[in-house]
Amino acid sequence: MYQAQAYSAAGATAPLAATSISRREPTERDVQIEILFCGICHSDLHAVRDEWNEFMPTIYPIVPGHEIVGRVTNVGSTVKKFKPGDLVGVGCLVDSDGTCHECEADLEQFCPNRILTYNSPDRHSGSVTYGGYSESVVVDERFVLRVPENFDLAAAAPLLCAGITTYSPLRHWGVTKGKKVGVVGLGGLGHMGVKIANALGAHVVVFTTSPNKTEDALRLGAHEVVVSRNADEMAKHAETFDFILDTVSAQHDINSYLDLLARDGNITLVGAPPEGLNVKAFSLIGGRRSLSGSPIGGLRETQEMLDFCGEHDITADVEVIPIQKINEAYDRLSNSDVKYRFSIDMASLKSQ
Amino acid sequence: MYQAQAYSAAGATAPLAATSISRREPTERDVQIEILFCGICHSDLHAVRDEWNEFMPTIYPIVPGHEIVGRVTNVGSTVKKFKPGDLVGVGCLVDSDGTCHECEADLEQFCPNRILTYNSPDRHSGSVTYGGYSESVVVDERFVLRVPENFDLAAAAPLLCAGITTYSPLRHWGVTKGKKVGVVGLGGLGHMGVKIANALGAHVVVFTTSPNKTEDALRLGAHEVVVSRNADEMAKHAETFDFILDTVSAQHDINSYLDLLARDGNITLVGAPPEGLNVKAFSLIGGRRSLSGSPIGGLRETQEMLDFCGEHDITADVEVIPIQKINEAYDRLSNSDVKYRFSIDMASLKSQ
Repeated sequence: MYQAQAYSAAGATAPLAATSISRREPTERDVQIEILFCGICHSDLHAVRDEWNEFMPTIYPIVPGHEIVGRVTNVGSTVKKFKPGDLVGVGCLVDSDGTCHECEADLEQFCPNRILTYNSPDRHSGSVTYGGYSESVVVDERFVLRVPENFDLAAAAPLLCAGITTYSPLRHWGVTKGKKVGVVGLGGLGHMGVKIANALGAHVVVFTTSPNKTEDALRLGAHEVVVSRNADEMAKHAETFDFILDTVSAQHDINSYLDLLARDGNITLVGAPPEGLNVKAFSLIGGRRSLSGSPIGGLRETQEMLDFCGEHDITADVEVIPIQKINEAYDRLSNSDVKYRFSIDMASLKSQ
Repeated sequence: MYQAQAYSAAGATAPLAATSISRREPTERDVQIEILFCGICHSDLHAVRDEWNEFMPTIYPIVPGHEIVGRVTNVGSTVKKFKPGDLVGVGCLVDSDGTCHECEADLEQFCPNRILTYNSPDRHSGSVTYGGYSESVVVDERFVLRVPENFDLAAAAPLLCAGITTYSPLRHWGVTKGKKVGVVGLGGLGHMGVKIANALGAHVVVFTTSPNKTEDALRLGAHEVVVSRNADEMAKHAETFDFILDTVSAQHDINSYLDLLARDGNITLVGAPPEGLNVKAFSLIGGRRSLSGSPIGGLRETQEMLDFCGEHDITADVEVIPIQKINEAYDRLSNSDVKYRFSIDMASLKSQ
């Protein structure tokens, strides 16, 4: 074991603060990574504040962070895919059993024995996994991704969660050229959804409650912007959408979006309103529509997404912060005051 | 025009009563049918009582009935598929534009200009369509179905709505041998779902709130019965179902069923609880699950269902009544007091 600098929270109401954590020395299958940037995902905030206690109680201290970009510093003896100096990424997963039918289908996100990058049992240490708000991390090579060298690294970090979380359902539901695709909500997830849906060739419509986001939505790749509070504007799009990506994690009227789907259209939720959504049966029955959810993606698909984003020059719009501003960033994130993702410059850890 | 005996309701609180209605003489494309049996669908009751006013206000007087089996008595000059004496059926649809992409895809149930068998604008008369609680009906040959001769006709009538409403989603979501399929609710729709899913080769599990339905569920073709109020029994089936057909039209906890779906599993609603269902996002996101709805089926698929049921000797379990007992039957249907569908012997119309 070795000591690594990190930021952790000691409890649901404690601020994140500098600490030192134990990391394992790389085993023969491990890749050791110097973390350069780590995106701040809304899940980090939910986990730190134990807001998902019902589904996934937080074990303290917690070191969040699952949008990791860094350089390989060391590799185990059997590691073939990576060498020191390689630019790599780590997302939400750091382990899985590798033998179940989900793993065999390259869908490790559904493996019953998957290990999340933080707040999961750590099979090596016997403790808990610690995430990317740290100077380094050690990860099984199966869960390390190759990051295209042409990226702005601060802006690439959010691809590891926000990117794959939006790319995966867009691909799963067959979004291609000629499809009409909606994106509900223009935040960390939504702005990635717009960029990726546009690059996939779809006609992209952004739904927002804030008319002042129109210009930005168009700049990000939307072809149309609909203010969702305007019933007349909504009605114009009735029964026309092939797919809608719903990134909103607050309560909202899902039926008004279901009614916009064409026959066999689908809405996939990637945000999770805690109280649940009221769904009218007739909104589904009328057009044989469906409402789904989707969590992150498997490793093969995450690599595919990174390569796709590399080819199309897609990264997140980020505000780069030093780690010392993390608590302020969380407060701003709570108030949706960021365009569109924070990315922590991990070099700042060394300057304290 | 000619006069036909029928039963109609004059208002939302009026009983159904004997009347005489005008039917058109067959045009060159029409088939005239002597109605032998007409099933009583829960939709008939909703329509008569104007309980779906929000979606489809009832125009009075209403002659319900869209589970029609009868014999051809006359055909128009260009009709090729049918001749007098043929055994035929009519379901929920009697017309559509025939030119839209839904019609071209044999999905007339989604045609924006579809005409329902009752309570829809009648293009011929300029009035309203009248359904199967009548001695005869005149229907465009495109909307007339061939009924296998081996059927018990009283028991075959409900196939025209309850049969296709359950067959269509079972087929659409790929139910075949080896799939694990749930059926929620054992009423008119549910008991057809069980028979059809069994005949498709699936492992069929019935969910019911009434333990006393167990024996009947097994007789109908279920391989297992789960009492849905028993949380332990439910938990045993977590994450194992490929597909669940939900036939319940009262409020119920849909999340407890979503949690039983395997990855990419689907629940399709064919019942319509009026207040909507509370759906937790995590129930969908966890296994990339989906919740859908499905309305009846197109003509091609309805014929396929009739042929399938003919081959597998599947009809509804019915209680045959004379038309004079219709109001009593509605009251019993309201109380779920029928196993499992009423079928009206239309010969009774002549005995009054």
